Amino acid sequence: MDINDLKHLLTAVQNGDLSISEGLERLRNLPFEDTEIAKIDHHRALRQGVPEVVLGESKTADQIATIVKHMAEHGDNVLVTRISREKAEALSNSYPDGEYDLLARTFVLQQKDFQDLGRGKILVICAGTSDLPVAKEAAVTARMFNNRVAELVDVGVAGIHRLLAHTDALREASVIIVVAGMEGALPSVVGGLVDVPVIAVPTSVGYGASFNGIAALLGMLNSCAGGITVVNIDNGFGAAFAATRINRKRES
Amino acid sequence: MDINDLKHLLTAVQNGDLSISEGLERLRNLPFEDTEIAKIDHHRALRQGVPEVVLGESKTADQIATIVKHMAEHGDNVLVTRISREKAEALSNSYPDGEYDLLARTFVLQQKDFQDLGRGKILVICAGTSDLPVAKEAAVTARMFNNRVAELVDVGVAGIHRLLAHTDALREASVIIVVAGMEGALPSVVGGLVDVPVIAVPTSVGYGASFNGIAALLGMLNSCAGGITVVNIDNGFGAAFAATRINRKRES
Amino acid sequence: MDINDLKHLLTAVQNGDLSISEGLERLRNLPFEDTEIAKIDHHRALRQGVPEVVLGESKTADQIATIVKHMAEHGDNVLVTRISREKAEALSNSYPDGEYDLLARTFVLQQKDFQDLGRGKILVICAGTSDLPVAKEAAVTARMFNNRVAELVDVGVAGIHRLLAHTDALREASVIIVVAGMEGALPSVVGGLVDVPVIAVPTSVGYGASFNGIAALLGMLNSCAGGITVVNIDNGFGAAFAATRINRKRES
Amino acid sequence: MDINDLKHLLTAVQNGDLSISEGLERLRNLPFEDTEIAKIDHHRALRQGVPEVVLGESKTADQIATIVKHMAEHGDNVLVTRISREKAEALSNSYPDGEYDLLARTFVLQQKDFQDLGRGKILVICAGTSDLPVAKEAAVTARMFNNRVAELVDVGVAGIHRLLAHTDALREASVIIVVAGMEGALPSVVGGLVDVPVIAVPTSVGYGASFNGIAALLGMLNSCAGGITVVNIDNGFGAAFAATRINRKRES
Amino acid sequence: MDINDLKHLLTAVQNGDLSISEGLERLRNLPFEDTEIAKIDHHRALRQGVPEVVLGESKTADQIATIVKHMAEHGDNVLVTRISREKAEALSNSYPDGEYDLLARTFVLQQKDFQDLGRGKILVICAGTSDLPVAKEAAVTARMFNNRVAELVDVGVAGIHRLLAHTDALREASVIIVVAGMEGALPSVVGGLVDVPVIAVPTSVGYGASFNGIAALLGMLNSCAGGITVVNIDNGFGAAFAATRINRKRES
Amino acid sequence: MDINDLKHLLTAVQNGDLSISEGLERLRNLPFEDTEIAKIDHHRALRQGVPEVVLGESKTADQIATIVKHMAEHGDNVLVTRISREKAEALSNSYPDGEYDLLARTFVLQQKDFQDLGRGKILVICAGTSDLPVAKEAAVTARMFNNRVAELVDVGVAGIHRLLAHTDALREASVIIVVAGMEGALPSVVGGLVDVPVIAVPTSVGYGASFNGIAALLGMLNSCAGGITVVNIDNGFGAAFAATRINRKRES
Amino acid sequence: MDINDLKHLLTAVQNGDLSISEGLERLRNLPFEDTEIAKIDHHRALRQGVPEVVLGESKTADQIATIVKHMAEHGDNVLVTRISREKAEALSNSYPDGEYDLLARTFVLQQKDFQDLGRGKILVICAGTSDLPVAKEAAVTARMFNNRVAELVDVGVAGIHRLLAHTDALREASVIIVVAGMEGALPSVVGGLVDVPVIAVPTSVGYGASFNGIAALLGMLNSCAGGITVVNIDNGFGAAFAATRINRKRES
Amino acid sequence: MDINDLKHLLTAVQNGDLSISEGLERLRNLPFEDTEIAKIDHHRALRQGVPEVVLGESKTADQIATIVKHMAEHGDNVLVTRISREKAEALSNSYPDGEYDLLARTFVLQQKDFQDLGRGKILVICAGTSDLPVAKEAAVTARMFNNRVAELVDVGVAGIHRLLAHTDALREASVIIVVAGMEGALPSVVGGLVDVPVIAVPTSVGYGASFNGIAALLGMLNSCAGGITVVNIDNGFGAAFAATRINRKRES
Repeated sequence: MDINDLKHLLTAVQNGDLSISEGLERLRNLPFEDTEIAKIDHHRALRQGVPEVVLGESKTADQIATIVKHMAEHGDNVLVTRISREKAEALSNSYPDGEYDLLARTFVLQQKDFQDLGRGKILVICAGTSDLPVAKEAAVTARMFNNRVAELVDVGVAGIHRLLAHTDALREASVIIVVAGMEGALPSVVGGLVDVPVIAVPTSVGYGASFNGIAALLGMLNSCAGGITVVNIDNGFGAAFAATRINRKRES
Repeated sequence: MDINDLKHLLTAVQNGDLSISEGLERLRNLPFEDTEIAKIDHHRALRQGVPEVVLGESKTADQIATIVKHMAEHGDNVLVTRISREKAEALSNSYPDGEYDLLARTFVLQQKDFQDLGRGKILVICAGTSDLPVAKEAAVTARMFNNRVAELVDVGVAGIHRLLAHTDALREASVIIVVAGMEGALPSVVGGLVDVPVIAVPTSVGYGASFNGIAALLGMLNSCAGGITVVNIDNGFGAAFAATRINRKRES
Repeated sequence: MDINDLKHLLTAVQNGDLSISEGLERLRNLPFEDTEIAKIDHHRALRQGVPEVVLGESKTADQIATIVKHMAEHGDNVLVTRISREKAEALSNSYPDGEYDLLARTFVLQQKDFQDLGRGKILVICAGTSDLPVAKEAAVTARMFNNRVAELVDVGVAGIHRLLAHTDALREASVIIVVAGMEGALPSVVGGLVDVPVIAVPTSVGYGASFNGIAALLGMLNSCAGGITVVNIDNGFGAAFAATRINRKRES
Repeated sequence: MDINDLKHLLTAVQNGDLSISEGLERLRNLPFEDTEIAKIDHHRALRQGVPEVVLGESKTADQIATIVKHMAEHGDNVLVTRISREKAEALSNSYPDGEYDLLARTFVLQQKDFQDLGRGKILVICAGTSDLPVAKEAAVTARMFNNRVAELVDVGVAGIHRLLAHTDALREASVIIVVAGMEGALPSVVGGLVDVPVIAVPTSVGYGASFNGIAALLGMLNSCAGGITVVNIDNGFGAAFAATRINRKRES
Repeated sequence: MDINDLKHLLTAVQNGDLSISEGLERLRNLPFEDTEIAKIDHHRALRQGVPEVVLGESKTADQIATIVKHMAEHGDNVLVTRISREKAEALSNSYPDGEYDLLARTFVLQQKDFQDLGRGKILVICAGTSDLPVAKEAAVTARMFNNRVAELVDVGVAGIHRLLAHTDALREASVIIVVAGMEGALPSVVGGLVDVPVIAVPTSVGYGASFNGIAALLGMLNSCAGGITVVNIDNGFGAAFAATRINRKRES
Repeated sequence: MDINDLKHLLTAVQNGDLSISEGLERLRNLPFEDTEIAKIDHHRALRQGVPEVVLGESKTADQIATIVKHMAEHGDNVLVTRISREKAEALSNSYPDGEYDLLARTFVLQQKDFQDLGRGKILVICAGTSDLPVAKEAAVTARMFNNRVAELVDVGVAGIHRLLAHTDALREASVIIVVAGMEGALPSVVGGLVDVPVIAVPTSVGYGASFNGIAALLGMLNSCAGGITVVNIDNGFGAAFAATRINRKRES
Repeated sequence: MDINDLKHLLTAVQNGDLSISEGLERLRNLPFEDTEIAKIDHHRALRQGVPEVVLGESKTADQIATIVKHMAEHGDNVLVTRISREKAEALSNSYPDGEYDLLARTFVLQQKDFQDLGRGKILVICAGTSDLPVAKEAAVTARMFNNRVAELVDVGVAGIHRLLAHTDALREASVIIVVAGMEGALPSVVGGLVDVPVIAVPTSVGYGASFNGIAALLGMLNSCAGGITVVNIDNGFGAAFAATRINRKRES
Repeated sequence: MDINDLKHLLTAVQNGDLSISEGLERLRNLPFEDTEIAKIDHHRALRQGVPEVVLGESKTADQIATIVKHMAEHGDNVLVTRISREKAEALSNSYPDGEYDLLARTFVLQQKDFQDLGRGKILVICAGTSDLPVAKEAAVTARMFNNRVAELVDVGVAGIHRLLAHTDALREASVIIVVAGMEGALPSVVGGLVDVPVIAVPTSVGYGASFNGIAALLGMLNSCAGGITVVNIDNGFGAAFAATRINRKRES
C-alpha cells in the first residue's frame, strides 16, 4: 500500500463509498511493513551506485547462475564474492564480459559505468603478501560501490620504514582499510599517522597461536591508537561496505 | 628542529659559516622524528576541536591532578574518562568549574566554547538502561570532540517497535554509535534501517554466557547487516573517537 | 494512536473537517509502532496473569524503589529479581507486605490473588543444595506467573536412586525445569525418564574446570536425551518465563 | 517381568507352589529395570505418533541399511537424519518409496499416515538461505513426529520489515523454532513479538569470528527477550523433538 | 523396604492376610530405590572407614554447625573441607577436640581411631610451596579415609635432582598423588619413574597464561607418561577419594 | 654400566690395576642414568606382562614395520594403536598371525600366552555406539596388558534403566573405565553406584558445542561423584594403562 | 657424598677396610642426586652475581621475613618480587637499608656491590605508562642480576615517531626487553629495527577483549618480525632472568 | 637519498645552484625512510652470514620459483621453509644442487660456504620423534644462519634418565632450543639443568586436549624454571632465528 492507495481510501471515505467502520478496518489491518518500506526505503536510497551482491561461498554454481541472471536482467552491476575458480568459469560461459579475479575470488559484471560517488579515495593497505586475497576483495568491492580506490601492499610493521615511505598515500585517503594477519599490529601504526577513519580487517593468515585470525582480531580490538574500528576476520567485503558508507558524498 | 632551523642551517652553509661536511653531519643526524612531526603533524591537525584526554582508570588521584594541571594551563578543554567518584571529587576541588558525570564516569573541564566541526549529528543508541554508562561515555566524548550528539535509550531488539518509532532520529544522523550488551543484536537491526556508518560497541552487561561482553562482541562482528564496524568491549570513548573522524568536516 | 483516534480521523475526513491531503499526511506519519502495538499487543496478551518484573542486580536501591512505586500503583503484582538483602530491606520499609526470599534473592509484592493459568504443574528439580538459589528463583518466578509449582531438591546423578524414587512427581509435571551445576548431567537423566518438555538451567556452582558454569552449560547443550532445551547460566528467571509460555492454557 | 508375572508369582506363593524363600529370592533378584520400565514406560507413551530415528552421520551405508531394515519391519515410520546423498542412494535401492531431502539431509520412510497429534502448528523460521539445511531438518523431523509445520525463510534481522510482514504466521504458531547463524539475533526479535515458546537453533553458518556457530549460540543464550530456550549448534532435530513435546496434545 | 519386609509381605500373602491384588499393588508401588539400595548399598560398603564429609565453602557457619552436629551424633569421624578460619573458629567452640588445619583449610573431628584399611601407603607429592594447600587437603582427606599417608614437598621439575633424591619414597607408595600448578609437568616425570597409579592434581597456582590452573590441567591431560589420570583443578579432596578407592584392601 | 661393571672396577682398585685417582675419575663420570636404571628399573618391572607398544598414528607404514620387526624379534607381544586399515594391511603381510581390529584401530601380535596378572577384572563401559572405537582401544589394550576385561555397551544416561540392569557387572569389576562423548555424564552415574576406582574417558563424539570432546571432558572433571579420575579425550589406551597399574597384583 | 667421600671409599677398598661387596652396595645406593649436583652444579655457577630471589605474592609477611632472614645471613643480595606495600613496610623494619620500589613492587637488599657481568646493556622498553610496573620489575631484576640496564618509556606504536627518535638507544643494547599490553605490537616494530635478541613481555594492561593480556600475548607470539621470543603475561622477572642468561659474559 | 645526495644538495646550495628556499623545500620533503635506512640498516648488518628466506607454505610452486630465482642470482644462500615435497621437486629441476629435507620440509640452496659466526653451538633438543619436523626445521635454519648445531632426539620427561645421560651435550651449548608437544614439560627440566638461554618451541603434536599445541604452549609460558622464553607453536624457524641473534659473535 503506497501513498496513492491511502489517497484512494480517504477519498472513498469522503465520498461515502466506504463507511467509517470499513475504512477503520482497512486501516487497522494496514500492512505496516509497506508503509515502513515507503518511509525508510533505505534499499533504494542505498542502491544508487551500489551493485547487486551475491555471496558465492555457500552456493552451488547453478544457484549462483540463477541469482546472477535475475540480477543482470535489470542492467545493474553484479558482484559475486568468495567464488571459486570452478564456479567462476561456469559463470563466465554465460557472461563472457564478466571478470574473475582469482586472488580476490570475485566475479564482476560491469553493466553500468563507474561514477565516483565518494568524497575522496579509499586506501587499502595490506601487511603481507599472504593478506592480499582479503585486501583485493576489499578493493574490488569498494570500486564496484563506486569509490576511487588506492592500494598499498607489503608494508608490515616489522619493516616500519616501508610504511613511512608512503605517508603521501596515507594523507590522501579519506578512509583507510588496513588488512593484516598474524599479530595485526599495522592498524595501530597507521591510526597513529593519520586522522581519517581507519577500518581494520584481521585475516586468518598465520599458524599456531594465530588461531585462524583471533590473534589479529584481538590485537586490532585493543589497538592503542584511537579512531580504529574492526570487522570480522577475512571480511574484506564488509570493510569496503563500511568504508563506502563513510566515504559516500551526501547532500546534507 | 623546525623549518626555521633548517633555513638557518642552509643559510649558514650558503654563507660559508658551516662547511658542507659539517652541514652534512648535522643533517644526517637530524632527529627525523621532528621532521616527521613537521610533515605529518596529525596531532595538531586533529587537535583543532579536540580536547586533551586522560584515561583515569589506572591512575591515582595525584597522577590525574598533575596531568590535568599541565593540560589545563594551555587553556584547552580537558576530558578525563573512566574516573571514579572519589578521584573526581578530589579533582573538583582544584577545578570547581569541571563537571563530573557519575554515569559516564567522565570529568569535563570546558575552557573553550563548543563549535560544531561535524558534517552532521552523531547519534548514540543504547539497547538497555544497563548499557547507559558506555553510551554516556560515548556521548560526552563525542561532544567534547565538538560534534553535535543525539541520544536514544532503551530500544532493545526484544521490543522492536520501540526502535521503529524513532526512524526519524535514525535518518537524521550522519554516524550512529550503537551500544548493546547481552546478545548485541541491535547494530544488525539498525544497520538494516539506515545507510550511514554504524559503529557497534559491545558492553560487558549480562551474566553467565555473556562472558563479560564476549557474546555481544561476537554478535556484532558477525552482523549480517553490512556497513557495521566494531570497537572493544565497553569502549564508548573509542567509538566516539572513530565517529568523530568520520563526521569531521574536511576541506577537500 | 488507538482505534478511537483512527475513527475520529476518518470521521473528520468524512465530515470535511479534514481534507484528504491533511488526512493523508497524518496517516502517512502515523507512528506505526502504535498500530503495531495495536495489532500484535503481545504485551497485553501476555500480561494477563503476569507480574511486573524488575531486574534488581544492576540497579541502586533508589532506582528500584522508584520503579516499584510506579508499578505498584497500578495494583499489579511486582517481582524484583536478583536483589540483595540490603536493597530488599530498604524496599520493605515502603512495602511491608512484600516478601523477600533470601535464597532466591527475590522480592515479591502480591497485590492480586494467585490464579492457576496453566495446563498443569511446573516441576523445578535441583541437583544439589548449592544450586538452590537458582532453583528458588525459578520457582518463585513461575508462581508469580500464575503457575502451580512443585520442587524437588538434592537429586543429583551421583545418587541416581534419589531421583528414581520420585518418578511420580516427574510424571505429574507438564514442564520440568532442571537446575544443575558442576557436570550438568541431571537433565539428560530426567529427559530420558519423561516425555514432557525439559528446560535445563546450568548454574555457576563448582570450581576449577567448571569455569563458572561453562562445563554445565556445555553438558546440557550436548545432552544425549531428546527434547531438552537450555537457558543461560544461573538464569532461573528465564527458565520460568519459558516454562510459563509452554504451560499457559490457550483457548485455541 | 510385568504385572501378570507378579500376579503369577503371588498366586504361586498363595497356592504353596512357591515357598516363601523361593518367592523372596525371585523378588529380590527382580530385574528392577523391568518394573521401572513398566512404571514409567515413557518410550511407549512417546512412541505413539513418533517415528523410529537413525542418526546417519557416523554410520556406514551398511549399518544404516541393517538398522532401517529392522525398524521398517514393524511397519513404523522411519527417519534417518544427517545422511549423505551417497548413503541415501544406497538406501533408496531397498526402499524405493523412501524420500531423500538433499537440503535437510533426511531420508524418510512413511509407512503410516500422518495424524495431527499437536495442539497447534510448529513454525520454523530461518534467518538466511544458508541456514536452510538446519531449518529443513527441523521441519522434516517435526512433520515425522506428527505435527503440522509451517516454514518462513530469509527473514533475518538486517531487513526487519521482512519479518514484520509475517506477523500473522507468527501469531498462528503454538511453538516457534528460530534457526539462525552469524550473530543469531533473530530469536530475540521473534521472542519480543509473540508469547508462545521460542526454541532457538544456532547454526554454524558464518566465518571468522562466528567460530562455527559459537557467536550465534552465545547470542541466543544471552537473549534479552524472555521465554527463549536454546539447543545445540545445527541441532534442527533436537529443536523439533523439544517442540513436539511442547506441542503434543495431552489428555490431562 | 528390606528383605525382612519382603518376607513379611510374602508370608502375609501365603497366610491370606493379604490378598493377591493387595500384594500386587504393594509390590508394584515398591519404592525401587530401596531395593536398589539393598542390592548395591555402596554407601554402607564405602562408609566402613570413611568419615562424614562436609564441603564448607559455600555454606554459612550456622549451616556447617547444624550439619556437623547431625553427623557427630552418630559417633562418626567428621571432615569439613574448604572451611575458612572464621568458620572453623566458630565450629571449635562447639567441638574443642576438633582440629583445624589452616593450610589445608580442613576441620577434623576424630571420634573413632584410625585403622589402616589400605593395601599400602598413599604418597602426596607437591611441586612448590604454593601448591601446599591443595596437597595438604589431599593428605588430610586420605588420612581421614583411613589410609597411611606420606608427603613430599617442593620437588618441582626445574630442579629435577630434588625429586630423584627421593626415589625410595616413590617406590614405597601404592598410589601417588602429584599436586602441581604452573606448567603441571611433575606428574609426567613421576609417572616415568614408578609403576603404580599416579593421580595428577592441577592447582590454580600461577598467573597470566596459567589461567587459574588451565595450563597445569592441560599439561597433565596430555602427559606423555602412561598411567596418569587427572582430577579437577585444586581438587585435593577428589584425588584422595580416588586414591582411597585404589588403595582400599578388598577381600576378593 | 651395570653391577658387574662396578664390581670389576672395585676389584681393579683392590688389585691395584686401577689407581684410586683413576677409579675416582671413572666413578665421578659414571653415567648416572645407568645406576638410576639399575635402581629403579621400572621398565623391566612393568614389562612383565606388558606388550611393546607403538603409536601408529603419526608414523608411516614403513616406520611401523621397522619398529615392529625390532620388537617382534624378542618374542614379546606387540600392540600397535591408532593404525589405519591401509597400514595394518601392509603389516599383515609380514605378520599374518597379527590381528587387526578395525573398530579399535589396533594391530595385535600375540607371541606370548595371556596370563592374568590382575587382582580382578577391568570393566569397560561405553555410553553410545559412536564411542565404541575408544572403548575397544581400551579393551584391547587392557587385555594385551594381561588383564581380564569385560565390556558393556550402549548404556547412556538418557536411558538410565539400561545401566541399572547391569549392576552385577558393575559390582564384579575391580576397576571401571567409562567411555562417553557428548555431555559425558555416565561416569558420574557409575561412580555413584560402585566403590571401585572409575576412570573416565571423554570422547570426541558429538557436534556443535561438544567442541570435539571438550564438553565431555569438562563434565567428567566436574563430576559430582567422588573417586573419578579423567584421561585425555579419546585416550582409550591411557585409560587402560592406568587401569592396569591399579589392577596389577603386587606382592606387597 | 662429594669427591672426598668417593676417594675415601676407594681407599678403603684398596686398603681392604671395605670388601668389594660392601663397596658395591655403597656405590649402588649412592645418592645420585649428589653426584648430579656435583657434575652440573648450575646453581653455583649461576649464583655468581645472582641474588637470592623470593616471590612475595603468595606469601605472608611472616613467611617472607623468615626466608629473607635466612638468605640475608649469607651476605648475599636479596630480591623480593611482587611484594605489596604493607608487606614491604613490615620488612623494612628489620632491614632499614632495603629499598622498596612501589611501582615495581620489589624489595631490594643490596649487601654486595654491583659488578657488571654482562657483555652489554639490557634495554627495557615500555609501550605505555600503565605497563610501567612490569617494566620496572624487569629493570630492577636485571640490575640485581648484575647487568647494566637502560630504560625507555611510553614509546607505543600509535606514535611511531616517539620510538624512531630513540634508535641510538636501540642500537646500543645487547638484549632488548619490550613490555607492552593491549595489542602488544611494539616488539614487532622493535624487532624489525634491531638485530639483537628481543624478549617480549605481554602485560595485562587493557580491558574488554584484551582478556587480561591474552591479546598482547597472542600478538607477540605471532610477531611477523624474526628473532622475538615471549614470556608469560606480566612476567617482568622472567624476562630479566632470560635476558641475563643471554647477556652473561662467558669464558668460552 | 643517501649521503652523496645530501652532499650534492648542500654543495648546490653553497654554489648558489640551489636557492635556500628550494633546498629547504627539498629537505622538508626528504623521504625520511631513506635516512632511516641509512642510519639503521639492520638488514645489511644482519645479512652478513644470513641466507635469503622464503616461507613456502602459502605460495604456489611458480611463485616460489620466481622468488628463488631472484634471490639466487645474487649468489646468496637461499632457504625455503615449509615447502611440500611436490613444490620442492619442481624447484629441484631448476636447482639440482639444492637439497630438500623431507622431514624439515626445507629446501636449501647453498651457494656460499658455511662460516661459523657464533660464539658457541646451538643445541636443538626434541622430546619425541613426532616433534622431529619442527626440530629439524630449527636445526636446518640455524645451520643456514651460520651457526654450529647439535641435535638431541627423543629425550622426553617421562624417561628423565634419557635426558640426564646427555648433560655433557647440554653444558656445551651456548643456546638451547627445546622442541616439545603434548604437555611441553621438557624446557622446564632443561632450564633447571643449565644456565644458558633456553628457547622453548611448542609443537602441535598430540590429540584431544592438546588443542593443536595450546597445552604445550601454556606449559612453556608457565615454566617454573627461569630463563626460558617461548615462540609460536611449530615455529622452528623463529626459534632458530632468535637463537642466532643470541649466539651471534659481536665486536662490542
